[in-house]
Amino acid sequence: MPKIDIAQTPYRTGSVYPEPYNAQMAGRSSHRLGQAAGLTQFGVNIVYLQPGAVASLRHWHLREDEFAIVLTGELILCEDSGETLMRPGDCAAWKAGVAEGHHFVNRSGGEASFLVVGSKAEREIATYTEVDMQIHMEGGNARFTYHDGSAWAGPRDLPKGDQK
Amino acid sequence: MPKIDIAQTPYRTGSVYPEPYNAQMAGRSSHRLGQAAGLTQFGVNIVYLQPGAVASLRHWHLREDEFAIVLTGELILCEDSGETLMRPGDCAAWKAGVAEGHHFVNRSGGEASFLVVGSKAEREIATYTEVDMQIHMEGGNARFTYHDGSAWAGPRDLPKGDQK
Repeated sequence: MPKIDIAQTPYRTGSVYPEPYNAQMAGRSSHRLGQAAGLTQFGVNIVYLQPGAVASLRHWHLREDEFAIVLTGELILCEDSGETLMRPGDCAAWKAGVAEGHHFVNRSGGEASFLVVGSKAEREIATYTEVDMQIHMEGGNARFTYHDGSAWAGPRDLPKGDQK
Repeated sequence: MPKIDIAQTPYRTGSVYPEPYNAQMAGRSSHRLGQAAGLTQFGVNIVYLQPGAVASLRHWHLREDEFAIVLTGELILCEDSGETLMRPGDCAAWKAGVAEGHHFVNRSGGEASFLVVGSKAEREIATYTEVDMQIHMEGGNARFTYHDGSAWAGPRDLPKGDQK
């Protein structure tokens, strides 16, 4: 039966980020619903954020559309262009290739959660807009570079043209 | 700002079905969030069902993954294999090509709603499992056939091998 037993889906904490960014993802966890259901064309995760936690580094996707709906609690959608309070039922979407960095932050006193959908491109690049890093995904493997494409070897200042 | 003003998204009632099936979709309406946000890789709709309404004819998709989460009210997920009560937060997913017909039915006394995500194949076929009909989608146009592929020209009995 296609009803998903959420508690039985793969559960993840932390991130794929290198340090020091991985440590900044404390208080974040997720259930991987799409994977559990055998979906291959888009991913569906429920992400849980403890008070103070962030869902990801602020980023935008080159080739993958993304959509989110808040399920529980209260979140701040932080984007390069500003902040928006998001409550259960509130939705947001980001078209692939639009260079507007975004992430969810929990500044409330309780847990909050959202459901996020992202299509699965064969090769994808996400650009972080608050730190000088990009992630390159291919065949399930992640590789990190600076914005200029050279291999990432530790935090450094954002290139001047990329500073907000 | 990518937060979606749901009330401002395209609002649809009815269906693309020919009669008599179109009339069976009374009490169904939807907001098209993905379209409003410019997404092209998957669709995202919120579907509202009045008491007694159904979301679609029972169907399965050949090439498109599908995912749904109940947002408000109480729905019955009716599938070829059985029925499941679905409440807010409950999720279901259908992998492309799995021949398990499914649809949501509102047997409660109040409105119910769910959010549904479906990938967008260039050419898609959905097969209805309670009536002898298929929909063929290509370039945004719908064409209806019987299960044997011949042009649909009005309701007829399900082929013997397709009866549940």
